[in-house]
Amino acid sequence: MTDALPIDHPPRFDAAFRRQLEQLYRWRRDVRRFRVEPLDEGLLDRLIQLTMLSPSVGNSQPWRFVKVDDPDRRAAVRSSFERCNQAALAEYEGQRAALYARLKLAGLDRAPAHLAVLVDHATDCGGRLGQRTMPETLTWSVVGAVHALWLLARAHGIGVGWVSIIDAERVRDVLAVPATWSLVAYLCLGWPEEEHLDPELERAGWQGRISNLDGVVVQR
Amino acid sequence: MTDALPIDHPPRFDAAFRRQLEQLYRWRRDVRRFRVEPLDEGLLDRLIQLTMLSPSVGNSQPWRFVKVDDPDRRAAVRSSFERCNQAALAEYEGQRAALYARLKLAGLDRAPAHLAVLVDHATDCGGRLGQRTMPETLTWSVVGAVHALWLLARAHGIGVGWVSIIDAERVRDVLAVPATWSLVAYLCLGWPEEEHLDPELERAGWQGRISNLDGVVVQR
Repeated sequence: MTDALPIDHPPRFDAAFRRQLEQLYRWRRDVRRFRVEPLDEGLLDRLIQLTMLSPSVGNSQPWRFVKVDDPDRRAAVRSSFERCNQAALAEYEGQRAALYARLKLAGLDRAPAHLAVLVDHATDCGGRLGQRTMPETLTWSVVGAVHALWLLARAHGIGVGWVSIIDAERVRDVLAVPATWSLVAYLCLGWPEEEHLDPELERAGWQGRISNLDGVVVQR
Repeated sequence: MTDALPIDHPPRFDAAFRRQLEQLYRWRRDVRRFRVEPLDEGLLDRLIQLTMLSPSVGNSQPWRFVKVDDPDRRAAVRSSFERCNQAALAEYEGQRAALYARLKLAGLDRAPAHLAVLVDHATDCGGRLGQRTMPETLTWSVVGAVHALWLLARAHGIGVGWVSIIDAERVRDVLAVPATWSLVAYLCLGWPEEEHLDPELERAGWQGRISNLDGVVVQR
């Protein structure tokens, strides 16, 4: 593929690109340890713009993005995380509880950028095509977009951490968004303090890789 | 980034790679028009293996893959699509109904590969970390993996179509998978008949692109 091709010419992705894409998949991490230096504001917008190329059911494009810069709102989200994390810890026992307590599960304290990604359940866009049978696909379209943003960010050297140990309704209220929107992902973004190939939870001894092709079923 | 780097060396992705990644996002399509030539069997396995590098809540890796080659099962899935599509059509009126009736919404008739992607709700892997507050994140982990597979396939020139106009429980029964698994995506894969930059539903006049940065909220 060369840059000289016009935009309406289908690109031919080559083996070198595919090797780099594979490296991107291998090195994408859920990052919780950030340097405090800010991201370039224009860069985050550029990432969001490209993220909007993601697939969506019926081309509904139901993703909504909220950049959370306000310190009070950030503090409220962090409080929600701390409450939920304490409650989660209380459900583990013995060694597992001790290990859980040592895990660093969010980068809310230092990440320079906080981005909430929400789904608008009330959108008319797409005319509900594909949603009659599987209405979850509206929200799932936003999940795919979050994955797209994650890979793009890593291609720029930027780490992303997805914080799911929060009260999604509480966070929605903190953000004061329309009632028809619900939270899909609260993301921390920033330059990572370190880069590593093994997932954070694997290196901490919580959960290693289990996936392999043994689990693929073929029905002939 | 060069191939000479050892695997534990963080790759540096450059601007040329990022341009190609952007092209991949732009040219990924939901494909419903396939050539009948089969995919190389080893290639689909390779794509699935790389897909398993996707992020998952608590590193739970809850994705389960079923390659549906059996003609009777394929026919049953196609019947479910046809029933659901007729029911969906009945909900539109006038010109919208006429347009819907002309849309080609699945490639189940010709796609050489059918792949069901499911979530195992009963997995112990990951110790439920992150799921207490947002249990949907288990299923969402599989959605992210489907997006990863979609991009990877396109990088190999292979088209993917996600069929959501089906009865997910019926399809789960057809596949005879464990009761704790539920369907996330039924995918058609194959070489596309055509390649184009505009989404299928845009060129058919159903729904064009609306996403832009005007919808991004900044809370300072």
